[in-house]
Amino acid sequence: MNNKKLIVIGGDAAGMTAASKVRREQPEREIIVFERGYYTSYAACGMPYYIGGQLESEEHLIARKPEVFRQKQNIDVRIRHEVTEIDQKNKRVKVKNLDKDKYFWEAWDDLLIATGASPIVPKMENIDAGGVFALSTLQSGIDVFNFIKEKKPEKAVVVGGGYIGIEMAEAFLGRSIDVTLIDMAPQLMAAFDTDMAELILGYMREQQVKVFLEEKLVKFEKNADGSVKSVITDKQTIPADIVILGMGVKPNAELAAIAGIELGAKDAIQVNKRLETSVPDIWAAGDCAESFHLVTQEQVYIALGTVATKHGLVAGINISGGSARFPGVLGTAITKFKEMEISRTGLSEKEAKDSGVDYLVETITSVTPAGYYPGSEKISVKLVVNKQNQRILGGQIVGFRGAGKRIDIIATSITAGLNAQQLVDLDLAYAPPFSNVWDPVQIAARKFV
Amino acid sequence: MNNKKLIVIGGDAAGMTAASKVRREQPEREIIVFERGYYTSYAACGMPYYIGGQLESEEHLIARKPEVFRQKQNIDVRIRHEVTEIDQKNKRVKVKNLDKDKYFWEAWDDLLIATGASPIVPKMENIDAGGVFALSTLQSGIDVFNFIKEKKPEKAVVVGGGYIGIEMAEAFLGRSIDVTLIDMAPQLMAAFDTDMAELILGYMREQQVKVFLEEKLVKFEKNADGSVKSVITDKQTIPADIVILGMGVKPNAELAAIAGIELGAKDAIQVNKRLETSVPDIWAAGDCAESFHLVTQEQVYIALGTVATKHGLVAGINISGGSARFPGVLGTAITKFKEMEISRTGLSEKEAKDSGVDYLVETITSVTPAGYYPGSEKISVKLVVNKQNQRILGGQIVGFRGAGKRIDIIATSITAGLNAQQLVDLDLAYAPPFSNVWDPVQIAARKFV
Repeated sequence: MNNKKLIVIGGDAAGMTAASKVRREQPEREIIVFERGYYTSYAACGMPYYIGGQLESEEHLIARKPEVFRQKQNIDVRIRHEVTEIDQKNKRVKVKNLDKDKYFWEAWDDLLIATGASPIVPKMENIDAGGVFALSTLQSGIDVFNFIKEKKPEKAVVVGGGYIGIEMAEAFLGRSIDVTLIDMAPQLMAAFDTDMAELILGYMREQQVKVFLEEKLVKFEKNADGSVKSVITDKQTIPADIVILGMGVKPNAELAAIAGIELGAKDAIQVNKRLETSVPDIWAAGDCAESFHLVTQEQVYIALGTVATKHGLVAGINISGGSARFPGVLGTAITKFKEMEISRTGLSEKEAKDSGVDYLVETITSVTPAGYYPGSEKISVKLVVNKQNQRILGGQIVGFRGAGKRIDIIATSITAGLNAQQLVDLDLAYAPPFSNVWDPVQIAARKFV
Repeated sequence: MNNKKLIVIGGDAAGMTAASKVRREQPEREIIVFERGYYTSYAACGMPYYIGGQLESEEHLIARKPEVFRQKQNIDVRIRHEVTEIDQKNKRVKVKNLDKDKYFWEAWDDLLIATGASPIVPKMENIDAGGVFALSTLQSGIDVFNFIKEKKPEKAVVVGGGYIGIEMAEAFLGRSIDVTLIDMAPQLMAAFDTDMAELILGYMREQQVKVFLEEKLVKFEKNADGSVKSVITDKQTIPADIVILGMGVKPNAELAAIAGIELGAKDAIQVNKRLETSVPDIWAAGDCAESFHLVTQEQVYIALGTVATKHGLVAGINISGGSARFPGVLGTAITKFKEMEISRTGLSEKEAKDSGVDYLVETITSVTPAGYYPGSEKISVKLVVNKQNQRILGGQIVGFRGAGKRIDIIATSITAGLNAQQLVDLDLAYAPPFSNVWDPVQIAARKFV
């Protein structure tokens, strides 16, 4: 029996996955989770669809509530409790009860930092205007939802053309709100190469999103009542009733840094494959921590739900005395904009170039399902392979029905170390409603052999 | 320059893929293709959708016409020419010009047998009744299409609950024709385990297909005009205006056998990984030839378009002096019945048992997309792993939107030799419109770790 007390900071994917795993392995152990928000284990990735009106209620985004963790798993989840200091020498944390505005100390034997990430919010004039939002916690999503319901905005501006940006553009279209999207980069979706991003741009414009690239946010104008009136860029003034900032996220690592815990990639908390930080008995997991990249073999910062969940599981196993190693990431991600499916894994061409590897690249256009089948749709697949041994290094897919999840074939191939010929040789599933005889990812791989 | 003459028997996927590959590699070489039918390179797998009225014309099923091969690729394709004898000693074939009813001999240096497969048609009373069809060539599909158009059948009976059987059941429903399906086996879809087949059965019955299992076809009754009146089984008489026999296929290997070429698995033509037969300079590819199974490491007979195309490519490379080896099959296949997607790869539980391997099996039910997302649909995934080393041996998927092609993740994992933990560790793509945080195939794999 292990009576060491575990404290978890943060009650979302990584934290609660770890706490649940420890509870399963060690039924007697004391586990306290401090969560500064109101909610635990919510599907942040689902917020754009909730805001877009596709879900019946925000309740659907909550995988498990604090009281369920308490009652069914004997995990002492305390919401509205913010950890304000980690005292690593005395193995205790200082906690603020946000509702009572009181501080107290709580001792731990093991500490898991799962503080997540925060959206980047630039300091600029009138950033505090009503109707300017950054999506972070479930509460922030509810705020946006309620704002739309009450204020009935007609013009939205989305700042940033990444995942959140294009998903929120879709959400606004779903609410019949006019959408303008600006990005300071010369392309949308920085994780993709320019040629693939062009396809996304073309489709978004077709769907009546006004997209302006190489345009930098400068400040906001307010109405007399304090609500946002317009977005001022370095090129124009765009009227706006609501603004979403999708300018990326940064790891919530200050608490750890102040406590003397080492930071790593992109100032996320440095961890080894066991998810141990630089300080014994302190672990970190999820969007606040770095990850190991399977292709570059370097530490990277990738804030995604899949990674956070795997982090949590590995940390939970190790905290409860087991032995698990984080398997590494490829940065595999998928999203959609209306009917367009968009996915990527491994190295983009840009990343391959930056990494210094000698690579080859091919892009093909094909269909899914078969060309003659009703509703046959276009798919573009880009593959990056190592020039020396033709091993698959990365892939990007932009297409329609059935296109996006084919990225998993590429992700599996990269992880297994397959080369282009081996990808061509795979016995993949074919029938006209799904594919041509050669799957599009194989058609791309055939270009190299 | 290679002036050796290549003769190909059979102008569909395997034959034309090989001929095209040889032409690309050896522009000067003489290539003759004898095809006994009217068409080359047609998508046989698309016929049920054509018959079901989902394609505008049968033309869409033809990937490339004989005149295109002749004009653009300088391949001497002769349709309506049937090879009736292979004289391996004198390296020549006897050919019948079906339109002129004349025979002639043609010499070869290399011979590729790509004669395909034929549907199994039992010898029984009134099997020749009008309206009783077996799908084989494109012409047979056109015949069914025209019969439906002209005779307007109201009641269809499908004999056999395999791929063709369930696809034709869907086609008839699409034509508002009442469908009864009989199978002598105690389950549908012999390539699947009973538990997965039950899910298919339930859905087909829900969709108003009358399915009778463990019921054997005995004979047919005719109307006075020679058309089919009813199907007589060992249990009942079923009125029928049209009947489709979907009782499996057998390799067209008699021509080879008579010529003294060795047969292998299921009496298909025996080939090595280079697609060489037992006789020098004679090759075989496609539905008439056997294949190497990656999991059992044995020769098997699998008649599928993907396999035929890969066979043709490998044979083409080797015939033109290159060196390629057939990579092996997993028996990966996919189909759908209305909205249900159905796929499999590697060993089923039955096959694992028969092969003598010590195995474990798990089946899970999950969703695709995420549970809270509109249109979230059920998916069932069954995995078979090796008990000793937990390597993935096989998988089966039955589900709805987005379910079926996930089998490719399993097929790739089997080929790469991944075990259950490695499948769990994969960085697969997640977003609510597509998946939960753990992909259903990973949820299944997690049951083993």
